[in-house]
Amino acid sequence: MTAFWNEKMETLPREELADLQLERLQVTLNRGYAKVDFYRQRFEELGFLPEDINSMEDLARLPCTTVNDLVEHYPYGLFSVPLKSIVRLKFSAAPRIRPLVIGYTQRDVQNWLEVMARHMIAMGIGVRDIIQIAFNYGLFTGAFTFNQAAELIGATVAPTSIASATIQIQIMQDFRSTVLATSPTFAMHIAETRERLGIDLDQTFLKIGLFGPEAMSPDVRRRLEERLRIQAYTVYGVNEMVEPGMAAECQEKSGLHLAEDHFYPEIVDPDSCQPLAQGQQGELVVTTLTNEGYPLIRFRTGDITRLDFSPCPCGRTGVRMAPPLSRSDDLFMVRGISIHPEQVERLLGEAAPEVESYRIIVRKRDGLNDQLELQVAYPENYVSEWYHTHALADDIRAHLRRALGLGVKVKLMEASNLAEDAGRIVFED
Amino acid sequence: MTAFWNEKMETLPREELADLQLERLQVTLNRGYAKVDFYRQRFEELGFLPEDINSMEDLARLPCTTVNDLVEHYPYGLFSVPLKSIVRLKFSAAPRIRPLVIGYTQRDVQNWLEVMARHMIAMGIGVRDIIQIAFNYGLFTGAFTFNQAAELIGATVAPTSIASATIQIQIMQDFRSTVLATSPTFAMHIAETRERLGIDLDQTFLKIGLFGPEAMSPDVRRRLEERLRIQAYTVYGVNEMVEPGMAAECQEKSGLHLAEDHFYPEIVDPDSCQPLAQGQQGELVVTTLTNEGYPLIRFRTGDITRLDFSPCPCGRTGVRMAPPLSRSDDLFMVRGISIHPEQVERLLGEAAPEVESYRIIVRKRDGLNDQLELQVAYPENYVSEWYHTHALADDIRAHLRRALGLGVKVKLMEASNLAEDAGRIVFED
Repeated sequence: MTAFWNEKMETLPREELADLQLERLQVTLNRGYAKVDFYRQRFEELGFLPEDINSMEDLARLPCTTVNDLVEHYPYGLFSVPLKSIVRLKFSAAPRIRPLVIGYTQRDVQNWLEVMARHMIAMGIGVRDIIQIAFNYGLFTGAFTFNQAAELIGATVAPTSIASATIQIQIMQDFRSTVLATSPTFAMHIAETRERLGIDLDQTFLKIGLFGPEAMSPDVRRRLEERLRIQAYTVYGVNEMVEPGMAAECQEKSGLHLAEDHFYPEIVDPDSCQPLAQGQQGELVVTTLTNEGYPLIRFRTGDITRLDFSPCPCGRTGVRMAPPLSRSDDLFMVRGISIHPEQVERLLGEAAPEVESYRIIVRKRDGLNDQLELQVAYPENYVSEWYHTHALADDIRAHLRRALGLGVKVKLMEASNLAEDAGRIVFED
Repeated sequence: MTAFWNEKMETLPREELADLQLERLQVTLNRGYAKVDFYRQRFEELGFLPEDINSMEDLARLPCTTVNDLVEHYPYGLFSVPLKSIVRLKFSAAPRIRPLVIGYTQRDVQNWLEVMARHMIAMGIGVRDIIQIAFNYGLFTGAFTFNQAAELIGATVAPTSIASATIQIQIMQDFRSTVLATSPTFAMHIAETRERLGIDLDQTFLKIGLFGPEAMSPDVRRRLEERLRIQAYTVYGVNEMVEPGMAAECQEKSGLHLAEDHFYPEIVDPDSCQPLAQGQQGELVVTTLTNEGYPLIRFRTGDITRLDFSPCPCGRTGVRMAPPLSRSDDLFMVRGISIHPEQVERLLGEAAPEVESYRIIVRKRDGLNDQLELQVAYPENYVSEWYHTHALADDIRAHLRRALGLGVKVKLMEASNLAEDAGRIVFED
């Protein structure tokens, strides 16, 4: 009994899909050429026109677009419509040197909700479900999308946002929530809190976990499913396009169906940006096919994955991507927040310019990146009295918390103990 | 050049409005009687049926509904539709002994957005505007409503949520935001931060301030308008119905137009709950006329105001209410957060049961309730060493912050200094 939100598009035969993609690619290339200086220059440098791209394979003749390209055109340089046509601005979840902003038209937002609605239905969510959304609503608009898509399919939303695990559990019980949307890390914390409070699983009504933006390892999935008595699904998104919503697991849980009528995926060699043979593992590069406000051509997601074009028993024809468990750059995620080592270095420099040496420790718990520790060397000639040490650590901690939205453990140590791995990032189990 | 979102309803002649209200009141009363035990019992106790209410004046034969009635039926006791028809759950912003939850159907949400869209247009907001929403998105859904209504009218949304004033100003400049939606308190903080950072008003592009949920005094309005170079408007809502959106100022700034096709207002004597003569000041009591999910009959808002039925130069026929500057109960607001003294007492009891005497100080700055201070007496036999004092104050502070979402100043003092005003709330300018 497979349900669909948009059966026609979700089960489109792949030949028809290919025709649709090419047609929409043409529109996207023309839009980029006509409206965005950045893309027009690229075409001009290569000496060709959008109509010279005659097939999806030809697309590889164009260079990839990187996050840095986006950052350089902050705030509105890559928008392809006037600002008055934009209804939503979204900030990148991983601002580095400068923030990055993406714009959506009314139709873009509708498309976004439409793909999220598909994913929810594919996971078995329906009008009778009560979806508790324990994501932080705000500059990073993921939580909104869960919210609005849930309303679209007629489910009930409980926007619990950043309430504590204890409050989440109280609401979960009182409201009889059936779906929990949050990060795997916070879901694990909720599971532990429930156990600690001695609340029986029979007093909760969860059936489904809708998890992102971190990927779940098979082991983490198994433990979340047992400890919360749910079916756990991963949803994937790309900050710079739609997050969440580009792809998600169906009830088969064997790869994430990508909404290929809106997003064209390639798997490329991270060095050359050239497409790899079908089935190979590489970096996911995506071209938007319907975005009006912020079209992206061959955008490097940084995520390492592989694509599976074999038919899925659920009937959906969209290609399935493996949950991306690694990145082509140094970006890492702690408690659902994307962090770049450079960003930590910059923040440390701002908070405590006198610190010369540091090391980033990402500590795992239950298979999840759970804690960020910053080990910093005592500045030279430092009066290492209790008071001073605390003041320095507090300054660093406060600055990082404000900037990253994440509590960071700060440890001052002798420079000699930091010699190894200084300036590096270490993952500890 | 007056623009309208729904010209027909916004300018409906008052006789037609009265007919529409009576018709919708009948539907509401029938819905309450048929679907909600609480209302049916009330009718039965009085020995009459919904059809015995033949005019808006007859409505006063029914008793008022209070927040306590709502709390007693937590979570779903007052819902008049099955949960599967509810798409949004909203928590009360002032949970007391137990939380309170309100439900909206798809149509309720549409109606809500429709009235907010009317208010935005009435303030002169349009498709070219960029609305920076600096409200906390989450359990209290006001921010969502600004967000979705702004998308509905085709404006652009920048959901900056709880970002710091410095980040708000950066975004405001970079994005060229034209509308700032936030509380008057935070707007004042942004104004001060801008001055402190030495950023010229010419580097910002704000035109309009959309402020709630605190009311603005004329003096606060004047200063906000000068310091941010904006037109400042107040929007009013009722937690238990729609917040924000029930009423808002038009460009005349002489009272808040109430969306009377959705909400029927009465001004009553807070003691008897009986209607007062037209133009008198009293407590606002509201009956929902279109709510499907959570109809409220004669709900006591607690806000003291008066209604002005005279025609408004803007052409809107909806009655204008004065900004409610006081309450019929002890509820007060600090930095946009509603707080009840009982709630503070309960939280203090939880955090530090050994404390026997306390006093609540609400400190004003710039005419706004800016800081909550809790003065508590040292417990008897207390070892008032530095360490212990700090630990006790920290415990209280942490518990109140978690529960209220607000930083609270905690001051321990000799019981003798607290004798006066103990257990009371003191407003300091």
